[in-house]
Amino acid sequence: MKRQILCLGRQFGSGGHSIAVAVSEQLGIPLYDKEIIKKTAAESGYDLEYVQAMDDMEAPGRSKLIFKFVGRDNKGKSIDDYIWDAQKRVIYGIAEEGPCVIVGRCADYLLEGRDDILTVFIHADFDFREKRIVERYGETEVSPRVRLTEKDKRRRAKYEYRTGRTWGELSNYDICLNTATLSEEECVKIIVDAMRG
Amino acid sequence: MKRQILCLGRQFGSGGHSIAVAVSEQLGIPLYDKEIIKKTAAESGYDLEYVQAMDDMEAPGRSKLIFKFVGRDNKGKSIDDYIWDAQKRVIYGIAEEGPCVIVGRCADYLLEGRDDILTVFIHADFDFREKRIVERYGETEVSPRVRLTEKDKRRRAKYEYRTGRTWGELSNYDICLNTATLSEEECVKIIVDAMRG
Repeated sequence: MKRQILCLGRQFGSGGHSIAVAVSEQLGIPLYDKEIIKKTAAESGYDLEYVQAMDDMEAPGRSKLIFKFVGRDNKGKSIDDYIWDAQKRVIYGIAEEGPCVIVGRCADYLLEGRDDILTVFIHADFDFREKRIVERYGETEVSPRVRLTEKDKRRRAKYEYRTGRTWGELSNYDICLNTATLSEEECVKIIVDAMRG
Repeated sequence: MKRQILCLGRQFGSGGHSIAVAVSEQLGIPLYDKEIIKKTAAESGYDLEYVQAMDDMEAPGRSKLIFKFVGRDNKGKSIDDYIWDAQKRVIYGIAEEGPCVIVGRCADYLLEGRDDILTVFIHADFDFREKRIVERYGETEVSPRVRLTEKDKRRRAKYEYRTGRTWGELSNYDICLNTATLSEEECVKIIVDAMRG
């Protein structure tokens, strides 16, 4: 395999997670998505539930600015910072263990400079993603458009705060794929071929 | 062939033109790049040299704003506008003739909504593109970085003025590829596979 580690970022509802699963199955390499949360909880010593909540950034009104105003200890570090440090160690550790697929969590940024990674971003327009999240996760009291916007906003806020980059900016990625116009199978094939080289 | 028309946008020096040529050869379909200028000159009735200069936007300081202040006739139209109208007709005509590759010229925007197009954007970081333009076009008095920036600026200005979209924004494209990390062969294969479906 030419490239060892796939770092896959995605807009909520774009189908990025399904593509990551299919790629990991076809290549026979482990997938890390929610598993990273468990590892980060163990590494940081914080409760799994708390780390999960931080990962989802479910706090209302969560935005890039909020990161700057959360409580800090005498080293100037917030709990978010300690969890982030632990997550970085987890991701570096995973990358050392061998070929794998890592979904989100700024892995494309953390592993930048390695010549054995492939960075991919999966996106689609609102219409496609609205339809998809309703099909998969059902209706909720909150409209699909708001659910998408909120989730993307949180991912963007975290990514941009931690990396200093713009989330979903094409120059950060080797390949960007639009699932509104390309089928899941096409996306998987493109990524698998690029990983094999 | 699942998709009939490839609309390929590219940053200057990214190798997008070479990729377009290889794709057109492998698929056995015509490529339209500079040919569009000749057709536009014929269609508009303006001199080829003038249309060429407009296409290159070689006027110094050329920017998006300038478009608004060029001379206009009693219909409120500038020569740029008439050439643009002619170019649109040329591109619609080309698209009607059958499968093809169209490089740049806002074709992704003009042909939007057709279900038989593939839109691709080819990009690379400054280091890669600087090296490439010096290898291919030689040194000039102007530094490679300035040459790249100026050319991208002109392409961006024209695209954004004519389409109202952001140039190089990933949501405009089905596939974005980074030639600094993917080989030309890899890019060609990805596009050819996506065209064949």
